[in-house]
Amino acid sequence: MAKDFATRSENYAQWYNDLVIKADLAENSAVRGCMVIKPYGYAIWENIQGVLDRKFKETGHSNAYFPLFIPKSFFSKEASHVEGFAKECAVVTHYRLKNSPEGKGIVVDEEAKLEEELIVRPTSETIIWDTYKNWIKSYRDLPLLINQWANVVRWEMRTRLFLRTAEFLWQEGHTAHATREEAVREAETMLNVYADFAENYMAIPVIKGTKSPSERFAGAIDTYAIEALMQDGKALQAGTSHFLGQNFAKAFDVKFLNNANQLDYVWATSWGVSTRLMGALIMSHSDDNGLVLPPKLAPVQVAIVPVFKTREQLDQITQTVLPLKKALESKGVTVKYDDRETQKPGWKFSEYEFKGVPLRLTIGPRDIEQGTVEIARRDTLEKEIFKLSDVEVKVVHLLDQIQKNLYDRALAFRENNTFRVDTWDEFKKVLDEKGGFLSAHWDGTTETEEKIKEETKATIRVIPLNNPKENGKCIYTGRPSTQRVLFARAY
Amino acid sequence: MAKDFATRSENYAQWYNDLVIKADLAENSAVRGCMVIKPYGYAIWENIQGVLDRKFKETGHSNAYFPLFIPKSFFSKEASHVEGFAKECAVVTHYRLKNSPEGKGIVVDEEAKLEEELIVRPTSETIIWDTYKNWIKSYRDLPLLINQWANVVRWEMRTRLFLRTAEFLWQEGHTAHATREEAVREAETMLNVYADFAENYMAIPVIKGTKSPSERFAGAIDTYAIEALMQDGKALQAGTSHFLGQNFAKAFDVKFLNNANQLDYVWATSWGVSTRLMGALIMSHSDDNGLVLPPKLAPVQVAIVPVFKTREQLDQITQTVLPLKKALESKGVTVKYDDRETQKPGWKFSEYEFKGVPLRLTIGPRDIEQGTVEIARRDTLEKEIFKLSDVEVKVVHLLDQIQKNLYDRALAFRENNTFRVDTWDEFKKVLDEKGGFLSAHWDGTTETEEKIKEETKATIRVIPLNNPKENGKCIYTGRPSTQRVLFARAY
Repeated sequence: MAKDFATRSENYAQWYNDLVIKADLAENSAVRGCMVIKPYGYAIWENIQGVLDRKFKETGHSNAYFPLFIPKSFFSKEASHVEGFAKECAVVTHYRLKNSPEGKGIVVDEEAKLEEELIVRPTSETIIWDTYKNWIKSYRDLPLLINQWANVVRWEMRTRLFLRTAEFLWQEGHTAHATREEAVREAETMLNVYADFAENYMAIPVIKGTKSPSERFAGAIDTYAIEALMQDGKALQAGTSHFLGQNFAKAFDVKFLNNANQLDYVWATSWGVSTRLMGALIMSHSDDNGLVLPPKLAPVQVAIVPVFKTREQLDQITQTVLPLKKALESKGVTVKYDDRETQKPGWKFSEYEFKGVPLRLTIGPRDIEQGTVEIARRDTLEKEIFKLSDVEVKVVHLLDQIQKNLYDRALAFRENNTFRVDTWDEFKKVLDEKGGFLSAHWDGTTETEEKIKEETKATIRVIPLNNPKENGKCIYTGRPSTQRVLFARAY
Repeated sequence: MAKDFATRSENYAQWYNDLVIKADLAENSAVRGCMVIKPYGYAIWENIQGVLDRKFKETGHSNAYFPLFIPKSFFSKEASHVEGFAKECAVVTHYRLKNSPEGKGIVVDEEAKLEEELIVRPTSETIIWDTYKNWIKSYRDLPLLINQWANVVRWEMRTRLFLRTAEFLWQEGHTAHATREEAVREAETMLNVYADFAENYMAIPVIKGTKSPSERFAGAIDTYAIEALMQDGKALQAGTSHFLGQNFAKAFDVKFLNNANQLDYVWATSWGVSTRLMGALIMSHSDDNGLVLPPKLAPVQVAIVPVFKTREQLDQITQTVLPLKKALESKGVTVKYDDRETQKPGWKFSEYEFKGVPLRLTIGPRDIEQGTVEIARRDTLEKEIFKLSDVEVKVVHLLDQIQKNLYDRALAFRENNTFRVDTWDEFKKVLDEKGGFLSAHWDGTTETEEKIKEETKATIRVIPLNNPKENGKCIYTGRPSTQRVLFARAY
C-alpha cells in the first residue's frame, strides 16, 4: 500500500481525504456532492448500524420506512423547519423523460410536470408527523417509538467525504409521547445511547450537552448533542437528539385523548446519527501510517500473514493457522488469513497497517519450529513474539487493550486540548494557536454568539449537561454570565 | 382485531389490500404511489434482509453504496436500458426553493436550475458501471462481487401496496467478471440463492427459468427469474438475475487487461429482489382469517397469552411462563408474552391469528394446576393440549412442521393449478376458468407472444431451466415448436 499521502502536520484536510480514498473507504461519484461508499468503508458502517440497531431495539424502538419524497407544502407547515431545511434541497418537478424531438438523446417531458413539486427528504419530521396523525388517537397508542434507516439529501455546496455530502445515510428516530416529561426523558435516553456508543464502540470520548438557540435543530425546543474533538483541534458534532415539544403535532394537527379524556397535542422527539460518524472515527484515531480502527468496529480484527518460500512451508503454516483461526472465530473474533501467493508479506504488512486492522499475526517456518507467533499492534505499532499456545488468549486480551488504549489516548488528547479562557484576547490566541475546546463565559445572547462566530469562526458547541454554575463575565461583551460554555471551531 | 375485511373468494384484490392495511404491514402515504412500511411489516422485511444478506456474504459478495441520483445522460449510453427505465421516473431539475415573492409559501427558485437533470435511480447499472470503470484495470481486480441495499423509484401509474409502488426497497447485486462463463455462472448462482430463499424461508415453491426476449431486463442478454403462483391463479415474479454480457462495459468503456495481457471488455451480471417479496409472502399463505406467516420469517413465532381473573393467577402464570420463554429463546425461538391487562384474552387470540403468528400458547389457572398448556397452530387452526414439560420440544417441532406444511400446501396448489394445454380454445378457457400456469407450445417469436398477451393478458413467465425438448405446434400460430413454455396472467 502506497505511502504517498499527506501527513497530518503537513495538511490535515489532505491527509483525511487521502486516507478515505486510499484506504478504500469512499470516493466522490459522478454526481456532484454524492459519494460512493466502497465495500471496506461500508463494512465499518454496517458494524456501526448493527450495534446501534440493537441498542434502539433494546430501548423499545421498532424500525419502519417512510417515503423518500415529501410534498413541498408540508415544509411550510412548521415555520422554522422550512427555513432550516427546505431551501437547499433536491426538487423533483417532473415524472417523465422523452426522446428529444431533434433526436438529441432524452429530454424532460414538459407534459409530465407534477402538480406539486416533491422534495427529496432532508429529514423526515414532516412526512412522519403527517402519517402519525392517523396512527394516534388515544394515550393507548402512545408512546410511539420508531426509527428509520434511510438516505437523505441536503444540497451542500462544499462537500467532504463522509463529513458533508449532498446525499448521506443515517438513522432518524421519531417518537410520540403523551407528556412533556416523557418526551424529554426520551430525548435524553437517546443522547445517552449515542454517547455510550461513541465512547464504548467508537472509542471516542464525547461531551454531552444542549445547543444554544441558534444551533438548535429547525423546529426543536431543545437540541441535545454529543461533541467530539478531532486531532486537528476542531470539534465534530457526532449525534443529536431533539425535544420537539408540540411543534410538529400542532403543525400537522396530531391530537390524542389523554387519560383524563381530554384532547391534547402529542409531544415529540427526533434523533439521528449519520455516515458523518465515519469521518469522526477516521479522524479520531488514525495516524500518518494510515487508518487506525477500534477493534469493536473493525471489519477485520486480526489479519494473519504467512511468511514462506516453498509450498510445503505454506502448507505447514496453514495447518497451524486454521485451527487457531477457528478458535478465535469461536470467541467472536473476525480473522482474515491472507495466504495469497500473488502478494509478498511486506506488501500485506503495509496493507493491513494502512487499513487499520487492529492486530496482525505473522507466522514463518521458524515460528512453526519454535511454536511461536509474532503479533503486531496497529495502535502502538509494537511487535512481540508469543508462544503459539498463548495466542488465543493474548489476541482477545490485546483487542480489549487496543479498544481501551484508543479511548484513553483520545481522552488525554481532549483533556490536553480543553482550555479555560477568561479574556477575549486569550480566547482568540488559544483558538488560533492551539484550537481545541474553549471553556468560556458567554452572556447568553444569540447576538454575542453570532459576533464571536463572525470574528473567529468559533461556535458554541454545547452547554454541557450538569454544567457547574459559576459567576463570571462574558469574554466578548463583559456582561455577567452564570456558566461557562464550550466553544470550538467545528466540522 | 376486526374481521371486517373481504374474503378471498369475494374479492381477492380487496382481501389483499385489507390484509396489508389491517395487519399493520403498510399503508399508502401522502405521496402518490409511495407507501409507508409500518413496524410489523418492516420487521418481516428485516428478517428477509437478514437471511439474504447472509447468503450474499456466504457467496462472496460485499455490500457498498452508490448515489441515489443518476445524471440523465448516463441512461442514453445503453440503448435498450433507456427505453426500459429512463422514461417513467422522478426527475430532479432544481436544487433550491425560496420564499414566494407574493408571500404565498415557498416556490422553486428558477435560478437554481441544474445544468443536467438528475434521475432518481430506477436501478443502478449505469452509475455503478461508471464507477467500476475506475476500479477495474486488470484481471486481478476481478471478479468484483458487490451488492447494494437501497430504495429505488419507478413512476408507476397504477400502484398496489408492496406489489407495485413508485418507491420500493430492494437489493441490487452488480458483479464484474473476466469471462463470459464466469458471469453466466454468477447469474445462475444468484438465481439459485433466490430460489433457495423463496422455498426454504418464504415457503414458496418457485419455478426457475429464463425470460423470453420481450420480458428481459432492459440491457440484459439473458434474464433468469423465479416465478411463483399466487392463490388467485396469477403468477408473481419473485426475483431476477441478469446476464448482461458486455453491454454495460461497452456503454461505459470498462476494459481490463486479461491474463494474456490483452484488453477486453468486462462481463457483467445484476440481480435483485424487492419489497415485492412481501406481497408474494402475504398472498401465498394467508387466508380469510388473516395473515399466515412462515415461522422462519415471522417477527413473533410464539405468542403466549395468559388467561386469568386475579392478580395472583397472573403472577402464578407468569412464574411458569418466564422460564419457558427463556428456554425457548435459548433455542432461537422468538417469543412474545402478552400479559397486558388492558386487553382480554379473546381479543389477543384474534390479534395473533390475524397477524399470522405461527403458534399461540394459552395458559390459565387450570393449566397451572394440571401442568398443561394449549397450543394453537395458525396454519391449520388446530388446538391441542400438551404437558408443560413437553412444550419446549413440541414448539420447536411444530414450528418446523408449519414451515414444511406451508410449503407443501403451496406446492400442491401450484401442481393442481398447472395445466398442459394444446389448443388455443383450451388455452383461453383454462386461463379464464382456472388461471394458473399454462404449459403450452410457442413458436418462439415475440410477435406471437405479443398477440397472445393482447388477446388474453397472459405472458410467458419463464422458459423453465432444463426444459424437456418436445416437438409440438404453437397454440396460437400452429407453427412448429420444440418445447413448452409457461404462460400465466401475472402481477
